Amino acid sequence: MVYKTGSEPMIVYLNGEFLPKAKAVISVDDRGFLFGDGIYEVVRSYHGRLFELDTHVRRMQNGLQSLRITIPDDFNLADIAHELLEQNNLQNAEATIYCQITRGIAPSRTHAFPVPPLAPTIYVAASPFTPLTEKRKTGVAAITTPDQRWSRCDLKTIGLLANCLAKQQAFESGAVEAIFVRDGVALEGSSSNLFVVKEGIVITNPKTNYILPGITRQVVLDLCRGLGIATKEDTVFLELLFTADEVFVTHTTGEVMPVTKLDAREISSGAPGPITGKLQAAFTENVKNIS
Amino acid sequence: MVYKTGSEPMIVYLNGEFLPKAKAVISVDDRGFLFGDGIYEVVRSYHGRLFELDTHVRRMQNGLQSLRITIPDDFNLADIAHELLEQNNLQNAEATIYCQITRGIAPSRTHAFPVPPLAPTIYVAASPFTPLTEKRKTGVAAITTPDQRWSRCDLKTIGLLANCLAKQQAFESGAVEAIFVRDGVALEGSSSNLFVVKEGIVITNPKTNYILPGITRQVVLDLCRGLGIATKEDTVFLELLFTADEVFVTHTTGEVMPVTKLDAREISSGAPGPITGKLQAAFTENVKNIS
Repeated sequence: MVYKTGSEPMIVYLNGEFLPKAKAVISVDDRGFLFGDGIYEVVRSYHGRLFELDTHVRRMQNGLQSLRITIPDDFNLADIAHELLEQNNLQNAEATIYCQITRGIAPSRTHAFPVPPLAPTIYVAASPFTPLTEKRKTGVAAITTPDQRWSRCDLKTIGLLANCLAKQQAFESGAVEAIFVRDGVALEGSSSNLFVVKEGIVITNPKTNYILPGITRQVVLDLCRGLGIATKEDTVFLELLFTADEVFVTHTTGEVMPVTKLDAREISSGAPGPITGKLQAAFTENVKNIS
Repeated sequence: MVYKTGSEPMIVYLNGEFLPKAKAVISVDDRGFLFGDGIYEVVRSYHGRLFELDTHVRRMQNGLQSLRITIPDDFNLADIAHELLEQNNLQNAEATIYCQITRGIAPSRTHAFPVPPLAPTIYVAASPFTPLTEKRKTGVAAITTPDQRWSRCDLKTIGLLANCLAKQQAFESGAVEAIFVRDGVALEGSSSNLFVVKEGIVITNPKTNYILPGITRQVVLDLCRGLGIATKEDTVFLELLFTADEVFVTHTTGEVMPVTKLDAREISSGAPGPITGKLQAAFTENVKNIS
C-alpha cells in the first residue's frame, strides 16, 4: 500500500502491472494505436465508491464480445480500480476510473483479426476529478451538428475522432456539448445522452445502434420511475429540442446536466427547469447509497 | 549506414529518432491510442523507388489540415523512408512504408483539441512485402457488406474498426475483400477502391466524402486515358456489380486486383477480364518509370 502526494508520479495499471504513468507505454503495433480496435469505460468514483461499476463492467463485456476480444478470466476491474485509488491517494476524493482494452499487439498490420488471438492490452487509470457542480446549477450551452459517426454508436469504442471534432466545434462556438443530428433526429451528445422534457414527460431516444446505452441514462430513467415522473423512449426529432420545456444531457462525469441554450437560442426560460432539478437532487441522493 | 540481416531488429522512426521497433513505444496518453485521433499513409517501395510518394504526401497534408494537426516544417517523409529502407536492408527489395501521425500526447483525456497544440506523434516503418502476383493472375473473391463507417471516409484516419470488422467478415466467408454498400451504392472495399467494367467503359464512384481518394485509383484512371479506354466517374449501384463484365479493386499493395467472385457468385466468366489485364500490364510498366 503506497500513498501518493501530489508530487509523486501517478500510478496506472497496464497488463497486470501497477507502474508510474511515464512507464506505461504501448507498442506502435498495438491495434488500439493502429486501428482504433478497442473499447473503453469511464467509471465515476465518489470518495472510493464506484458508481454503477457492475453495469459498466457488463457493458464492457458486451463490447468485448461484439469485437471478439477475450480478456483473462481473472481480470477484476473493481480490484484494480480500488488498488489504483489507494495507490494514488484518491480513496477519499472525487475521481474517475478509465479502462481501455484493445485487441493487443499485432505481429503485422493487417485489418483482419490476428490468428491465434492476441493477448489484449488492458490499461486502467484513476484520475482526480473536479465535479461540475457550478455548471449543473447554471446549465450549459450546446450546439447541434450533423452526426458523422459510424453506425455502431452502441459500442463504446476508442474510435472517437467524430466525437472529438464535434466537441471541438462546440467549444469554438462557446458551448460545451455538441448534439449529433442524423436524418433529422437529435440522437445524443458527443459524450452524453440527450433528454427532453415536454409537458411533464421525460423523453429520450430508444436504444438503437445510433446511441450509446449510457449508464447514467438508465439511472435517470429509473429515478424518474421512483419520482413518479412519466418517461418515454421515443425518437427525439430536432424540432422537439427547440420547443422543449427542458433539455438536459447525462454522462458519468456531468451526471444530470441542464442544457439552457442550443445553437445560441435559449431553451424555454433559459434556466434549468424544475424536472431537471428534481432529477439532479435524486441523483445526488442516489450516489449516497452506493454500496 | 547500417545494413541489417534478417536476425537483426527492425529499425523504425519515431518522433525524430531511428530506433529498434521494440523500443518504439507510445504513451498511453497518445491521442492516437485514446481517440483514434490521427491519420496514416502506406507507400509502396519497389526496390527503393517510392511509388507516387508526392501524391501520398499531399493527401497526408490534406488530412492533417482537416484535423488541424501541425507537423514540423522539416519533416521529410522521403528522407525518412529512404533511411529506413537502408537501415533495414530493403533498398533492393519489395517493401511498404507505413507513416502514422497522431495529435500527440494529451495532458488529460478530453475530447476537444488540447491548447496549446501538442507536438504530434510521428511514426514511420519500412516492412518487407511479398507482392500479390499470384492473386493478381487468378483474381480474388469479395463479399458485399453494409457500410458502417463514419461519413468522412475521404480522410485516411486510423479509426479503422469498421474496416477491420468488414475484412474479418470477408475472410470468414473465404473472400479477401469486403465491398462497402451504403444506400444501395457499392462504394469501395475495406482497404481498396472499386472499379467496374461495363461495355468497355471503366467505371468508378466519383470522389465524395464516402470514398477514400485512392492514389492507385487515380493512377488507374490516368492509365485508362493513356490506353484509350473510356472512363466514367459515376455512382456504382450494387446491381451494376453483379451485371458487370469485369470488376477489380485497386490499392497500394494489391495494385490492380481482379475480383472474380462476389458474394459467392461469379463475375461474368469468373476469370479476370481483358481490360483488367491491360491495366495490370500498364501498371507494371508504369512502376518501371518511377524516378
